[in-house]
Amino acid sequence: MSKLTIIKVGGKIVEEQESLKKFLSDFSKIEGHKILVHGGGRSATAIAAKLGIESQMIDGRRVTDAEMLKVVTMVYGGLVNKQIVAELQALNVNALGLTGADMNYIRSEKRAVTNIDYGFVGDVKEVNAEFLADLIAKNIVPILAPLTHDGRGNLLNTNADTIAGETAKALSAHFEVTLIYCFEKKGVLLNENDDESVIAELNHDLFKKYVEQGIIQGGMIPKLENSFEALYAGVKQVIITRADQINEKKGTLIK
Amino acid sequence: MSKLTIIKVGGKIVEEQESLKKFLSDFSKIEGHKILVHGGGRSATAIAAKLGIESQMIDGRRVTDAEMLKVVTMVYGGLVNKQIVAELQALNVNALGLTGADMNYIRSEKRAVTNIDYGFVGDVKEVNAEFLADLIAKNIVPILAPLTHDGRGNLLNTNADTIAGETAKALSAHFEVTLIYCFEKKGVLLNENDDESVIAELNHDLFKKYVEQGIIQGGMIPKLENSFEALYAGVKQVIITRADQINEKKGTLIK
Repeated sequence: MSKLTIIKVGGKIVEEQESLKKFLSDFSKIEGHKILVHGGGRSATAIAAKLGIESQMIDGRRVTDAEMLKVVTMVYGGLVNKQIVAELQALNVNALGLTGADMNYIRSEKRAVTNIDYGFVGDVKEVNAEFLADLIAKNIVPILAPLTHDGRGNLLNTNADTIAGETAKALSAHFEVTLIYCFEKKGVLLNENDDESVIAELNHDLFKKYVEQGIIQGGMIPKLENSFEALYAGVKQVIITRADQINEKKGTLIK
Repeated sequence: MSKLTIIKVGGKIVEEQESLKKFLSDFSKIEGHKILVHGGGRSATAIAAKLGIESQMIDGRRVTDAEMLKVVTMVYGGLVNKQIVAELQALNVNALGLTGADMNYIRSEKRAVTNIDYGFVGDVKEVNAEFLADLIAKNIVPILAPLTHDGRGNLLNTNADTIAGETAKALSAHFEVTLIYCFEKKGVLLNENDDESVIAELNHDLFKKYVEQGIIQGGMIPKLENSFEALYAGVKQVIITRADQINEKKGTLIK
């Protein structure tokens, strides 16, 4: 099986011209097959504000009403995605920008309204990775925007961490997959005030212990849950690290 | 050789929800392999205006400055393109939205400034249709946004008629191609005030005569020049018609 590296990178890095250039240069140097999954929330918020659309957040999560769905479709699917594709082409990476609607890659369902209505937000139901696997084998590099579709004509805003995890799982039938989640720290920290306190290796028992002790909390919990789920589904390794360390593969190794 | 139908449709039809739905339903009924090339100028102008960016036009052509390039990247590459893809998926058409940057499909050069500076506008230099031909053979339906790239990291706003013509030419090595340009009339008219005065067939001699006589003028001239060029390059047939006639193949047959 050939190797495939899947990188998830947050909005902050891809939305600033300087950090994006550095990141894409690092990304272009990853050997073998690769995929990039990106965010874009800050740009979406900024453009929505200019258009007079208010960004509503609940517990740090975006509420996607009909107008905001148009904005994220423009920003994630157009502005951020196609700019990355064009810049990677200049670095001799044969990039292909995709949403989950393209080639019916990811079908999702609009999240059911319980206490909170997040609006046009999709929970992944089905990943059709055959076309993607073929293209990757031909050295195409998919660039995935955090949008999926419901199969009834609607796009849905979808968590980029989840898209990366589901992509890793689906493609582990075709490739030996390494999944790398980039965020602003060097890895999962033992002490949030000490940037050097990186946990080198984390297994599920340790993860549960750290969650109980309050050492691991907030948005890191679903990211790690995605990571373990990916490992159990056949992904070779999962790493959580800072974007400038993707080639060294430093950070926290999930096992 | 299998048949391939390439449809170019203007912004007006794809930017209004009702006409878009009707058009996509008609498009989904075209038998065999197909491609859709779309515009989106009205939406780009409207969103630019909301963002406080003025749309500058010279002789009916958009001037694309740096800010307007961001808008057309969002609107053509994101909003219009991905909405079409999602709606076609609901009609069981396995659509894939692309710009010329994706898979390095169309490389262009920024138009040289002579008397007029159109800004970030691209003239097509190279069409790499191998990946597209493979995907089409597997029943993927490419949806092409009017954007290309210069290979140095820049996207460029590119005439959709030209993209349709160049796509038809490049794919005529792989398929028996019919190219259909849709516009608001039933075909090329002998008398612009009589919507029924459709010229059934038009060859190059007749075209030149009609241009000299002022019967054919304006934006129809480059569209027809694209059409003849496509025919000489191996495209099987070119038709100019109204969007609601694409399945009947009525209109003006260019030969």
